[in-house]
Amino acid sequence: MVQCPDQRGVIAALAQLLYGFGCNIVESDQFTDKESDVYFQRIRFDFSDIVIGPANTAVLERAIAELAARYSMDWEIFYDTKVKRVAVLVSKMDHCLYDLLIRHRAGELNCAIPIIISNHPDLEGVAQMFGIDFRWVPMKTKDAEGKQAQEAEIDRILTELDVDIIILARYMQIFTHDFCARHAAHTINIHHSFLPAFEGAKPYHRAHDRGVKVIGATAHFATSELDAGPIIEQDVTRITHRDSVKDMIRKGRDLERLVLARAVRWVLEDRVLVHGNKTVVFED
Amino acid sequence: MVQCPDQRGVIAALAQLLYGFGCNIVESDQFTDKESDVYFQRIRFDFSDIVIGPANTAVLERAIAELAARYSMDWEIFYDTKVKRVAVLVSKMDHCLYDLLIRHRAGELNCAIPIIISNHPDLEGVAQMFGIDFRWVPMKTKDAEGKQAQEAEIDRILTELDVDIIILARYMQIFTHDFCARHAAHTINIHHSFLPAFEGAKPYHRAHDRGVKVIGATAHFATSELDAGPIIEQDVTRITHRDSVKDMIRKGRDLERLVLARAVRWVLEDRVLVHGNKTVVFED
Amino acid sequence: MVQCPDQRGVIAALAQLLYGFGCNIVESDQFTDKESDVYFQRIRFDFSDIVIGPANTAVLERAIAELAARYSMDWEIFYDTKVKRVAVLVSKMDHCLYDLLIRHRAGELNCAIPIIISNHPDLEGVAQMFGIDFRWVPMKTKDAEGKQAQEAEIDRILTELDVDIIILARYMQIFTHDFCARHAAHTINIHHSFLPAFEGAKPYHRAHDRGVKVIGATAHFATSELDAGPIIEQDVTRITHRDSVKDMIRKGRDLERLVLARAVRWVLEDRVLVHGNKTVVFED
Amino acid sequence: MVQCPDQRGVIAALAQLLYGFGCNIVESDQFTDKESDVYFQRIRFDFSDIVIGPANTAVLERAIAELAARYSMDWEIFYDTKVKRVAVLVSKMDHCLYDLLIRHRAGELNCAIPIIISNHPDLEGVAQMFGIDFRWVPMKTKDAEGKQAQEAEIDRILTELDVDIIILARYMQIFTHDFCARHAAHTINIHHSFLPAFEGAKPYHRAHDRGVKVIGATAHFATSELDAGPIIEQDVTRITHRDSVKDMIRKGRDLERLVLARAVRWVLEDRVLVHGNKTVVFED
Repeated sequence: MVQCPDQRGVIAALAQLLYGFGCNIVESDQFTDKESDVYFQRIRFDFSDIVIGPANTAVLERAIAELAARYSMDWEIFYDTKVKRVAVLVSKMDHCLYDLLIRHRAGELNCAIPIIISNHPDLEGVAQMFGIDFRWVPMKTKDAEGKQAQEAEIDRILTELDVDIIILARYMQIFTHDFCARHAAHTINIHHSFLPAFEGAKPYHRAHDRGVKVIGATAHFATSELDAGPIIEQDVTRITHRDSVKDMIRKGRDLERLVLARAVRWVLEDRVLVHGNKTVVFED
Repeated sequence: MVQCPDQRGVIAALAQLLYGFGCNIVESDQFTDKESDVYFQRIRFDFSDIVIGPANTAVLERAIAELAARYSMDWEIFYDTKVKRVAVLVSKMDHCLYDLLIRHRAGELNCAIPIIISNHPDLEGVAQMFGIDFRWVPMKTKDAEGKQAQEAEIDRILTELDVDIIILARYMQIFTHDFCARHAAHTINIHHSFLPAFEGAKPYHRAHDRGVKVIGATAHFATSELDAGPIIEQDVTRITHRDSVKDMIRKGRDLERLVLARAVRWVLEDRVLVHGNKTVVFED
Repeated sequence: MVQCPDQRGVIAALAQLLYGFGCNIVESDQFTDKESDVYFQRIRFDFSDIVIGPANTAVLERAIAELAARYSMDWEIFYDTKVKRVAVLVSKMDHCLYDLLIRHRAGELNCAIPIIISNHPDLEGVAQMFGIDFRWVPMKTKDAEGKQAQEAEIDRILTELDVDIIILARYMQIFTHDFCARHAAHTINIHHSFLPAFEGAKPYHRAHDRGVKVIGATAHFATSELDAGPIIEQDVTRITHRDSVKDMIRKGRDLERLVLARAVRWVLEDRVLVHGNKTVVFED
Repeated sequence: MVQCPDQRGVIAALAQLLYGFGCNIVESDQFTDKESDVYFQRIRFDFSDIVIGPANTAVLERAIAELAARYSMDWEIFYDTKVKRVAVLVSKMDHCLYDLLIRHRAGELNCAIPIIISNHPDLEGVAQMFGIDFRWVPMKTKDAEGKQAQEAEIDRILTELDVDIIILARYMQIFTHDFCARHAAHTINIHHSFLPAFEGAKPYHRAHDRGVKVIGATAHFATSELDAGPIIEQDVTRITHRDSVKDMIRKGRDLERLVLARAVRWVLEDRVLVHGNKTVVFED
C-alpha cells in the first residue's frame, strides 16, 4: 500500500518496477483525494513462481524504497505468509466474540488469535469452547492507579504475545489517552450507533428516546477521543415504534456482529488506509 | 385513530360500537407504549353499504364521543371523501418537488395540491408543467420584519386556500417559533441526514468531513426546535471514500425523494400519530 | 390465531369474549386476504392476574370453540408456558447451527433444543460445545431402502423426544414425499437463493453463471415439492463481478444465518400462518 | 477500456505509454476473471493540459493500437467531449421516463436525448414538458409485417438521429431477433423482477402468487433471448403478505426508476464491460 502526493508517472513507475522484478499484479485499486491531492494505491502482487527468499524480498523492498523516496511516497508491504496476531478484548457480552471465533474457525479471518482479554471473568467459557487462552485483567482499584495497572498488564500481554491488532468486541471500558495513543493505528472498536449520532454511553436508549426509525453500528479505529476515530464500516437496520430498547439491543447485536466482522476482515487483508480522520477502504 | 390510557375492554368496546353501526372494519392496527401505558389504535372501517349522510355520521361520531369520554380517549375520525389540501414549499432545488408532483399525478398521493410557495422564483416552470399555481413569497427585507411579513403572507395563502398539510420540500428557510408552533402538527420537513446526526446546515459537507460510510435522510414534523421534531421516516444509502460532497448530494437526492414521499403518503393516509416527540406509524 | 371467512362482527365478538374472561389484549394484528376473502387475526392476550389453571383455560377454550363454530373459524391457542421442542437437522456446514445455538443461549429463541440430528458425524463437536445431544443417522445403504430406514430412525427420534418443530439448518438431503407430507406444517428449511430463482442444487454456482448482482436466501416451510413450500422470509445482499463462487458462499452464510433465525423466531412466537402456498407473517 | 488475456507486464506497459504521452491517470480499475483468465481494465486519464487535437489523439490511438496488438488486447477509447446520443423507448407507463428526464435535466446523465419513441401516443405530453421530440411508431398491422415495418421505422429514426444507446423504459413490446441482434450491445432494458426469477410477462402477479417476501428490478442489456441478457444492475425491496399486486406495482416503480437510472449512468460513463453473458461494472 502506498500513499503520496498526486503526481504524474507514479502508477507507471510502480507497475514498471514490479514488472521488472517478475511480479504479477493480481489486484490494484487506487484513489486520489482531490481535497488534499493525495494519491493512494493498494497493489496485490505475487512472485510465487520466481525464486523467493529473504534476499529477494530485501532487494525488492530496497528498490521500492528508492522509488518511494523519488515520489515522496509512504509505503508498506505486507506478506501473506506473515499472519497477523489478534487480541480480542471483551467484557460480558458474548455475541461479537462468538461471531469472530466462528468466522476465524471457518477460515474467513486470516489471523491468529492467541488471546482473549477481559475485565470480567464471564466469557472464559466461550474462550475454552474454541481453545483460546483467556486472561482476566480486572481493575483492582476503582481509580486512576487501578486503571493504569490494568492497562500496564494488558500492554504486557500484548507485547508478550506479539499482538498486531486489538479488537474491542464490546469491551465496555474507556482507555486512557496514553493507551489509545499507543494503539491508535491498530485498535478496532465496535460502537452500537451510526456515529456521529449517539456517541458515548447507552446509544440504544438514546435512539429510543429520540424516536429514530433506523439504528446502526459503526466499526472505527479507537483514538483518544471517544467514538471519534476514523470510521471503517457502518450499517443500519430499520426499527419501528414497536421496538423497545430490548428489541433494539437484540436487532443491534446482528448489526454489530456484521459490521465488526467486515471491518476486521478488511483490516486483516490490508484494505484499510487511514488518511487524517477518515479511512480509504479498498473493498473486495 | 384513537389514543388513550391502556385499559382492559377498550378494544372490545370500540369494535362492538362499530359493529352495532353496521360498519365493517377493513384494517386495524394497535400499539401499546409500555413506558407511558398509552394505547394507540388505527381502525379503518367502511359503512359504504349502509345509508350514509351527514346525519348518520353525526350519530356515529356522537356515539364514539360518548365512548371516548368513558375511556379518557382522544379520537379523530377521517373521511376518505374529504381530500386533504397540501401546500408544497420549495426554494431552488427541484428534485423533491418533481417527485411529489409525479406521484400525485400517478395517484400515489391522495390529496389536492392547490399551491406551490417559494422564496425564490426559480421553480415556477415546474409548477406550470404540472398546472399548479405558484406563489413567489420572498423576504423583502433581510431582517425580522421582512421575515414576519413573509410568514404573514404565507399564512394568508394557507388560510385562503384552506390548506391542511404543509410539505417543506427542501425549503431552505428557517421559520420563526411562532410560525412553527402554529403549524407544528401538520408540517412535514425533509432533512438530508440521518437525524440526530448532522442537524442544521450543510449535513453532507459535515458527513464528508466525518468520513461516514452511510448517508441518510429524515422526514419529520417541523417544530420550533430545528430538526428536532418527531421523526416519521428515515433511510440511508452507502457511500465510500470515493464519494465527494457532490456525489453525496446526488445520491442523497434519491434518498430525500423516497423518504419524503413515504412520510407524506403515510400522513395523507392518517397512518401517523404523534406521541410526545415520537411518532407511531401504522405502516401499510 | 384465528382464520375464517371475512365477515362483519367477528372482531367485536372475539374482543368481547376475551374481555368477558378478564383477558387483556396485549398485541393484535389482523389481515384480510381480498382474493380469497379470508380473515386472519393474531391476538396475544394475558390472563396472568386472574386465577389461571387447567379448569379456567378449558372454559376459555370451550367458549372460543363455540364462537369459532358460529363464524366458521379455524383457531389455535398457544400458551407461553408450553415451550416448543425443536430438532435441528444438519449435514457438514456449521454456520446456521452455531447461529441458532448462540441465539438460543442468548435467549432470543424461546424453545428447547433436545437434539441435533445429522447424516454426518462432523458437527458432533459443535453440539457438545453447547451441551446438546447429537445423533448421527447416516443412510446405511444408498438406495430407497436406506433412505426409508434413515427416515424411520429420524421419525423415531422425533417422536421419542416429542419434537414440535424441525429446522433444516443446511441439511443436504432430500426427504421422501411421505416424510415431507408428515412434517410439512412444522419443518423450516433454509435455501441459499432468493426463490423462485435457482431452486434445487448449487444455487450460488448458477447465480455466478447468470451474472446476478444480488444473491439471496429464503426460509420456507419444507413441502414435498422441492424448494416450493410457503416462503416465510427472504433477504438479499449485493455482489459484484469480483465475487467468485467462494465469495458468494461466504457472503451467503451471513444471509442464511439471518434469514433462518428470523423465520425460526417468528414461527416460535406463533407469528406465521400458512394460507395456501403463502404465509401471513405478523412481524414484531 | 481494455480487455485481454491475463498476462504479466500489461499494466506497466499501458501506464508507461500513457505517462509517455503526458497523460494523467485519474481513475483506474481492473479485474481479472480467473475462470477465463481475461484481464479487464478501465483507465480514465486526461491530457487537458497538453496540446490536444485530432492529430494528437490519432497519434495516441495509434500507439495504443500497437501495444494492443502486442498483448492481444481489445480496447476502446471514449472522449468526454463526445456526448452519447440516447433514444428512450416507452409505451404507456411514465415513471421511468419522468425519472430519466429529470435526472438528465439535473445533469446526472451526461448524454443528449434527441428523441422519445413510443408505440402509443400517451406520453407525448411528458416529452413536450421537457422539450424533447416524440415519435409515435405504432404497429399498423398486428402481424409479422406490421412488426417489421415498425422496427424499420424505429431503425430509420435511430440512424437519422445518430443514436448510440437505446433505453427501453418500460417499452412493452418484444423486438424481433434481428432487431435485438443489431442493437444488442447498446440497448438497456428494465425488467420488473429480480431475474432470473419471473422472466417474461406479469412478474408482479407471479411474485404475488408465489408469496415472495422481496420484489426486485433488473436492468440488463437486451438480447434476442427474452430477459436473458447480461445483467447490469439489480435491486430489491421488501414486501409483506399485505401487499397486493397493486401495492407491488407501486413499490416496484421506485425500484425500476432507481435501478434503470444507475445502469444508464454507468453505461453513459463507460463503466460497463460485457464479458460473455455477464457484465463487469466498474462502479463509482
